[in-house]
Parts: sequence; structure tokens; C-alpha cells
Amino acid sequence: MSTLETPAWLGQLKRAVSKNKRDAHSRYFQLATRGQDDYPRVRTLVFRGFSDVGWSLFSVTDARSEKVRELAFHSRVELSWYFTQTREQFRLRGEAAVFSADSDPEGHRQRLWSALSEAARAQFFWPTPGAPLGDTEAPSFSQTPPETFAVIEYTPMEVDHLVLAKTQTRSLSEYVAGQWRETPINP
Amino acid sequence: MSTLETPAWLGQLKRAVSKNKRDAHSRYFQLATRGQDDYPRVRTLVFRGFSDVGWSLFSVTDARSEKVRELAFHSRVELSWYFTQTREQFRLRGEAAVFSADSDPEGHRQRLWSALSEAARAQFFWPTPGAPLGDTEAPSFSQTPPETFAVIEYTPMEVDHLVLAKTQTRSLSEYVAGQWRETPINP
Repeated sequence: MSTLETPAWLGQLKRAVSKNKRDAHSRYFQLATRGQDDYPRVRTLVFRGFSDVGWSLFSVTDARSEKVRELAFHSRVELSWYFTQTREQFRLRGEAAVFSADSDPEGHRQRLWSALSEAARAQFFWPTPGAPLGDTEAPSFSQTPPETFAVIEYTPMEVDHLVLAKTQTRSLSEYVAGQWRETPINP
Repeated sequence: MSTLETPAWLGQLKRAVSKNKRDAHSRYFQLATRGQDDYPRVRTLVFRGFSDVGWSLFSVTDARSEKVRELAFHSRVELSWYFTQTREQFRLRGEAAVFSADSDPEGHRQRLWSALSEAARAQFFWPTPGAPLGDTEAPSFSQTPPETFAVIEYTPMEVDHLVLAKTQTRSLSEYVAGQWRETPINP
């Protein structure tokens, strides 16, 4: 398979997103990072779309959040994405890149900010996440993303796809030497 | 709060499990570990109940799975448990203990094995998870758990509870010097 072709797992993941659309949970995945104390961390995030090129995917976050600090030290992550209706799990291992106000040459922030609801935008005008509770400021809306708005792009290099159908199947896809290689493995 | 009292977060978590019962996804949480290559790992697991004493919770797994090997090296984990209907997330940080055939003085394996469906039991008679695909053996059922059946007990020491209701709230509970202390923090 050449790098220009869509890897098989990406087609399967896009199919799962579409097939499970009616399930609110299908828009959430979990991001595991290595914490600054070297212990694992994991939280649920909203999926914000696939890249038009390659096989990366996006979420958004507050630039002041702990995960952004964690990713600055350890950019290697794993995502877990489980689809309840089709009963399949994707585990995506790879690199995470954070785009913030001073580092976004491709304009990911402006593009994803424009796609956010007003309610989702309001959160970026709140006090620092994780800090002791303070007064909340009145949100002021803007067509351009505030400094607190960051985008995370995930580029998987290894994908573990488990299907819990009547016959369970599992396959491991690895990007090695410019090619995706898929191996069926035991569930 | 004395150690004999139920911590507030545990009551909230049990309420969330009960309130979201109709959502199939409410029985799943994600377990993040530190991999043997020091990179984070995360996968979705089925919740198998709370402990009768203290505030721990359980899942089951194949003793041959990668996560069991990972936990032998790094027992510190984080769980992420998101409830779609009530829109709240619990992040549970703490220690994971694995009970296998030769180390289960409290009988967790027998108790949880008895509660499993036949379909769930059958998986423990399959070939090694994650190994290249081989022939599947015919499952033979048993009232006593096979050697491949392991139980994981999670004992949280720090709980981050985020509620995404109309007014978002977030609180951090920490077990310090024999007491649970809860602090409201910014969402």
C-alpha cells in the first residue's frame, strides 16, 4: 500500500463513526498521556474531525489544561475509541501535536474554532481549568480563537482494531518504512 | 470524614452508574497504564462491580493479556469513566492489583467467574490474546475459573469528578493521611 492510499483501518474507523452516529457516545474518545509525575493519565474528549490529508484526527482543548503541559514533555499517546452499537474498539497509538496561538501555520485553530458551538466557545473564556474554584468571568464571544484555544492533532502509527461481533476479530496495523502493514491477531 | 464512611465521590459514582443504566456504554470504563515501552496505553473494559468494603472496583481480564504484564511493572493507573446521559466524568487515579490463579486469598476470581455469562467465560478458553491469529479451540465450560482468568481491583486515591450540566462543576477528592478531602476546582 502506498502512503497516498487510505489505510484500511481509517476506512473502518470512518465507517464506525458513521454507523454509530445515533449514539451520542460515538463522538467521544479517550486520550491517555504520560503525566508529569510519570504516571498514566486518561480523559474523555470530543472528536473534532479527521484531517483531509493523511490519517490524523483532531480534538480541541484549553491551552491552560494539564494535558497540554503533559504533551509538551511526552508527545507519545494512545487513544481508545469504543463504539457501542457496532461493538468495536480502536486503539490508536502515535504522536500528538499541540497547535496554540503562536504555533499554527496551517490554521487548524481558526478552522476548528469556526465549527464550535457558542456553548463550547464560552469555556475558553473561563478561569484556568483545574485551579481552585474562582469567580467565572462573563464570556465574550469572538470570531477569532482566544489564546486559550488549542488544537491537538493525533497521528497514529499503530492501530489495534477489535471487533466484538458474533465472531470476534482483531487486527494490528503498523506504519513501518512508509507503509501500513496489517496483521490479524487473536482477540 | 473517617475511613469507615463512604467517600462522597463513591456515592456520586454509584448514583451515576444507576442513573445511566439504560445506556449500554455506562458499563464501560477506560484503563490507562504505563506500557513496557514506557508509553501510555488505554483500553475499554467492562465494569464488574464495587467492593463491599472500602471504595475499590473490579474488572476481569485474561491473565495472558498485555495489561497484566504492564501492571506487574507499573501498578499505578488511571480510569476514565464517562456517563453520557448525566454528562459527567470520573477520573480515578490509584493502584491496580491483579488476582490470578495462584494469588487470590479473598476469592475474587471465583465470585466474579460465577457472575459471568457463558459467552464471557468462553473467551478465557481462546488462544493467547494479541498473538498472531491461530485456530480457536473449542471452549470447555467450567464452574471454577481457568488459569487464564484474572481479576483486577482498582483502589482510587484521587478522584477528579467533572459534571457537564448547565452549570459545570468539578471537584478533586484526595485520600491523604487516612481521610478523603474534597476541593472544588475550575472545570
